[in-house]
Parts: sequence; C-alpha cells; structure tokens
Amino acid sequence: MLITELGKKAKIAEREIRIATSIQKNSALEAIKYALLDSKNIEQILTANKLDLDNAEQNGISEVMQDRLRLTEDRIKNISKAVEEVIALPDPIGEIIDGNVRPNGLRITKTRVPIGVIGIIFESRPNVTVDAAVLCLKSGNAVILRGGKEAINSNIALAEVMRNAIAEHINQDVIQLVTDTSREVSRELMQAREYLDLLIPRGGAGLIKTVCENAKVPVIETGSGNCHAYVDEFADLNIALNIVDNAKTQRPSVCNSIETLLVHKTVADEFLPKLAEFWNGKVQLRGYNAPVSEEDFYTEYNDLIITIKIVENIDEAIAHIEKYSTKHSETIITKDYKNAEKFQKQIDSSAVYVNASTRFTDGGEFGLGAEIGISTQKLHARGPMGLRELTTIKYLINGDGQVR
Amino acid sequence: MLITELGKKAKIAEREIRIATSIQKNSALEAIKYALLDSKNIEQILTANKLDLDNAEQNGISEVMQDRLRLTEDRIKNISKAVEEVIALPDPIGEIIDGNVRPNGLRITKTRVPIGVIGIIFESRPNVTVDAAVLCLKSGNAVILRGGKEAINSNIALAEVMRNAIAEHINQDVIQLVTDTSREVSRELMQAREYLDLLIPRGGAGLIKTVCENAKVPVIETGSGNCHAYVDEFADLNIALNIVDNAKTQRPSVCNSIETLLVHKTVADEFLPKLAEFWNGKVQLRGYNAPVSEEDFYTEYNDLIITIKIVENIDEAIAHIEKYSTKHSETIITKDYKNAEKFQKQIDSSAVYVNASTRFTDGGEFGLGAEIGISTQKLHARGPMGLRELTTIKYLINGDGQVR
Repeated sequence: MLITELGKKAKIAEREIRIATSIQKNSALEAIKYALLDSKNIEQILTANKLDLDNAEQNGISEVMQDRLRLTEDRIKNISKAVEEVIALPDPIGEIIDGNVRPNGLRITKTRVPIGVIGIIFESRPNVTVDAAVLCLKSGNAVILRGGKEAINSNIALAEVMRNAIAEHINQDVIQLVTDTSREVSRELMQAREYLDLLIPRGGAGLIKTVCENAKVPVIETGSGNCHAYVDEFADLNIALNIVDNAKTQRPSVCNSIETLLVHKTVADEFLPKLAEFWNGKVQLRGYNAPVSEEDFYTEYNDLIITIKIVENIDEAIAHIEKYSTKHSETIITKDYKNAEKFQKQIDSSAVYVNASTRFTDGGEFGLGAEIGISTQKLHARGPMGLRELTTIKYLINGDGQVR
Repeated sequence: MLITELGKKAKIAEREIRIATSIQKNSALEAIKYALLDSKNIEQILTANKLDLDNAEQNGISEVMQDRLRLTEDRIKNISKAVEEVIALPDPIGEIIDGNVRPNGLRITKTRVPIGVIGIIFESRPNVTVDAAVLCLKSGNAVILRGGKEAINSNIALAEVMRNAIAEHINQDVIQLVTDTSREVSRELMQAREYLDLLIPRGGAGLIKTVCENAKVPVIETGSGNCHAYVDEFADLNIALNIVDNAKTQRPSVCNSIETLLVHKTVADEFLPKLAEFWNGKVQLRGYNAPVSEEDFYTEYNDLIITIKIVENIDEAIAHIEKYSTKHSETIITKDYKNAEKFQKQIDSSAVYVNASTRFTDGGEFGLGAEIGISTQKLHARGPMGLRELTTIKYLINGDGQVR
C-alpha cells in the first residue's frame, strides 16, 4: 500500500521532471545545496543522526559501521559540495545521439530522455540518500529511496530537507523516501512493475543477491567486485609491488580493490617474499603464509586479506579469472606487448587494465563526474554509471504523410 | 539438467566467439546461407516441417497459425537471403565508442564487446530460429534458442543444418536449441543466472508476461504494442485518413500497428464518418459503430478492430496515451507547429511521430539493417534492436604503473 502510494505520486512527478529544463533542475539542486549549509537544517539532521547512532551503539553495531553511519557538520558540508559538483555537470537530457533522413524523407532523431521512476535500495551510509537523489533529479528522473533501517532517522531528516528545498522549483515528489523499512515493503518495491522503471541496489553482496532474486522490475547490479591482479613473467616487479599494494590496501572495503593475486611461476619466488616483507604482516596472504581453500577464490574479502595463486602461464591466469571473477576489474602487470594485448582481449570484465591499479574503476576517475554505482552486469550500463547511464532513448520521427 | 548442460557448452563456445574476427564470423554465416540453399538440407527441413504441420492440423490449430508455421522452398530461400543481409552489415564488435587520456596519463578506451550468452524464447514462426541465431552469431554472442512446441521438428532441423554448417568455422555450440519444450525446462532457462547474460522473449503478450514474471536473468521485453494515432484539430484530414488506414490495416497483426484512434472534437464529425465510409466495414470502430469498454483501451487487438475516442484537446490525448499506452509508438497528425512539438516532447514512448505512420518503427525502416525485436522497456535498448543492441561495453585502461 505504501509503495502504491509513493509510486502514484512518483508517476505524477515524473511527468513534470522529465520535461523540466536544465535551469529548472539546477535551481532545485541549488536549493538542496544551500539547504544543506543551513544551520537549522544541519541541527535537525544531526539530531536525527544522533538517534541512529545511539540505536547502533545499543545494538552493539561495530565501530566501523557506526562510523559509516555518522554525520558531522563537516560531512554534511561535503555532501553539499558534492551536490555543487553535480550542478556543474552537463545535463544529459536532450542530447541528440544520432539521426538521419530516410530515403522516403522521414527524419529520424535519436534523443536522450530520462528513464522515469528509479528505485534505489541501499545500506547504512546516509550520504547515499542525497547523492542518489541529486543524480536522479539532474537526469530528469523521479526517485524512490529505500535506505537501511539503521539510518532511518537520518534518512528521514535528509529527505525532508531536500523535499522542502525543492518544493518551490519542482514537484517535491520527484524525491521520495520509503519510511517503512520492513522486508515486506522492500519486497513490494522490488515488484512494483507498475511504478518503477529501474531498481538499483547499492550495498553488499547479500543485498544485491536479495534484490536480483526477488525483483520483478528491471535491476542493475552494482558493486560486486572479486577483482584480480596478475603479475606476469615479464613484469617490472617494482611496478607490480606498487600496484598490488595500492589495489589491495589503499581502501580494502571497496569493490574495485583486488581479492586475488595471480603470479607467474618464474617470478613467484622473487615477488612473493618481497611482497610479504613489504606488507610486514599488514595483509594476510592466503595460499602463501596462511591456508587457502577453494572458497577463498570466490570471496570478496573487503578486508586486508588476499588470496595468492601461482600459475604456469598467462592462459592459466586468464582461465582462473574467467572462472572466479565477478567481471568487475582486473589488471596485468607486464612489459610484454603480446601478453598485455592478450589479457585485454580475452578477459571479459568491465574494466581491464595494463600496468595500473584496479582502484581507478570509478566514475570520478573515469571522468564521468559522479557515479550512482558501478554496474557489474552487461545490460544497459557496465562499469561506472554516471548521469548518462540514468537515461534511455526516444526516437522522434518527423514526416509529411509517409505510410508504408 | 538440460539447461545446465547447454549452458556449460554455451559458456565454452562464448569464450571462442567473443574474440572471433569478423572474417571468421562471416565465414560461419556464409556457411549457413549456403546450407539453406542446399537441396538435401531443404528436403530435411521440409520433412520436419511437414510433421509440425500435420500435428497442427490434428490439433485443430487455426489456418493463420498453420501459415505462420509453414515453410516452403521459397520461404527457406528467403531465410537464406536474410542471412546474406546480416553478413553485409558492419560488425559492431570492437567499435571504439569513446576514450580519453586522464590527467595522470591513464589512457581509457571504451569499446564495444559481445554480451555473452543470450537466450531467446519465441513462438511458432520457425524463421526466428535462423534470424535470432545469425544476429547473435554476427554480434559475437552464443545463443540458446527455445522455440514453441508446435514448431519443434522444424526448429530441430534448422538448428542441425546451422550447427553442421558452422562446425568447421567455429565451435558449433555458439548455436544451441532447447529440444525439451516443457514448461519446467523453460522456467529453468529463465532462471539460469549462471549461464545466461540476457533473455529475450519474442512473441505475444502472454509469453512476455510469463518471462518477465518468472525470469531471474536480465530480460528485454519486446513487441508489446498498444499504439495510438491522434488526429489533431489542425490535421490535414486526407493525410490523417492515409496514415490511420496504413497504421491500422497494412498489417494489423504486428506490434507497431495502432489500436486506438484519438480524434479532436472539432474534426470528429467530419473525420469519423469519412473513415468509416473509407473502410466500409473492413474495420470495426469500437466507440463509433460498435460498443466500447474501458478494457478496450488497454487491448492490443492485433486485428481489424480499432478503439475510437473523441478528446477535448491535445492535453487529453496526451493524458490518455500516458495512461493506456505500452510506450511503443504514437503519432500525431497536425499542421500546427506548437502541437507537434508538444506531442513529441511530452509523450514518453520509444517512437513518437508527427505526420507519419507508426508502422515505420522497425529495424529495417530505421536503417539498422535487421532487428532481433522491438524493445518496449527503457533499459539497455529501446525501440528497434539491431546488432548494436546485442552488445555491451568494456573499458580498456592502459598505464605505466599508475596507482591512486
């Protein structure tokens, strides 16, 4: 019932925002940006966030998770800054992608239009509430947000601040929050074919699996990242050390960090002790200084653990990746032209690197400006999803009476 | 079990075809083209088709359906000709879509690659078996075909001819047919997340609904077409008559024909009698010379029936389409600039026409060369789907040791 109600409102709001001008949408975004700098709003958000933090503490939630949940005045100002960056991005709507005049005189124009109503299901970070809403708004979509129950008070406050801010610029129902975080309502959202054009889950593997298995609306899977580095027999081992260290340790919790290191047998005896010494116990090397199981090769640790496998040749490395990878990002470290080419040609992942860290698979790093997530499926969007990936196309056909 | 077996083979074949050159893929397609001109193969196919036709007759299947099922030497030669047309199309794989060098020197290249393993579930026309297979093959994908049980003997013969033909050019498992047409196996196919990257249903509304509701793999909905024509108060009524006649009667069974005619009240008294007289009983005009119900407005007749609604103004026409359309194709007939612009801007369908028949929404008519279907969803592909719509992207990132 709740979803039906939100869905109906979203449908009405969608009709308005999909034909809004860039000026109108940017005015609404400016209003959000300033609302997040307003001291009264900040106080309201921090008070709500305090409730969530207190609950988290009472429920014995880990300090890492509490930190993810925590908002501060500085963090809210950074969210406002992120809104500013979205305002500065070009509006993808209305772009003419292609077009021609057919032999019979029909003029066909392929244009970029919004998708419609987008649902976002996400976990504890409350900043996603604003990030997702502004990206959808900028790209002319209405959004229905469903955050985690741990952040519900923060999310309600943030949604209220945003909705109040945009009300004088656009129908405020372009941004709506699901306030009932029960599983039933969540399931209703996943099956709301009448109202949702797309559902994007943002979060851990469990959330994504639940959504993919229960959704009846179109879904884009994001952020499932079992990534690999392969140190080839012709690698520069200093570069290899730098890249493997960066790809594993710079931010182990994110999807574009690596989980498995494949090493060619001819360099393994030199490289692995060097790596272990460099890390000096900071990272557990399963299969080298710790036991390893078949299960490990499938695991996205999101932690300072790495699985090591020594391979006979590049073909074994490629076959391993084919079998275990989630097809997110993989890198080869090599000085050999043929192996670099082979790796990039044969590996079927969204981003395939030569001599660079997998950590670059990111909307900002790719120059997309901002991202709603990193798609690990092949349909619609693959890799970092920016504003353009939140759009679809519409053909305009102009004639003077043509019939078949 | 059957799907697991086919899926495993498809996965192996997919690794081969996704890196095949255009020359290799075209050689395989040439082999199919010639195999369909070979008299022994034609005989084999016609014998199998005879079995299906006999069964159809025994089961009291309508003459129209029997005709859909029927193959003749000429029809098989036409299928071969369609293969030739696909050979002539440019290979979409390897296209460089975009690219740049990042400030840190990383070179990013966005390239076009195959999707992987595609499932096609379709109904009685056996020519789809070949059409779908060659489009998937050309675009570097492996395909698992599941046709209707009425055409099973024809499909087995066609698949065998194709598989034998390509065997010396490429792993023949790039084309596989599900020979067990039970519902259980069909359901298995819809849920084969481990093996299928995409599932495309081709057929009637019932089939599409079943697939969308049961699939756990990504689906592209095709061919659901409740299309509209709106005769504006400023229409040229001769052009309107031509277009409405063409869009309704030229081929009423297809998805891009219209089901509802909206007429502005100021021209209704002139236009509707004119139209009824022109059709002279050939088409039933529900709401004009036959009763109409709310249900009619939702119905895709695929028949010589049309629903008529007189509207107060263009806004009512647009609101009607927003409510009832499947967002496939709509057309306005008008001489008024403002109304033409408004209609094209506000209507949220894949193809929005001014002064032309909706019958042009078609891969061939749009210049895509051939189509696997017409997508009526907003994700991945919208409107006619050609070879490019059977691809996804892969980022290649080349560096010299970059880390974050």
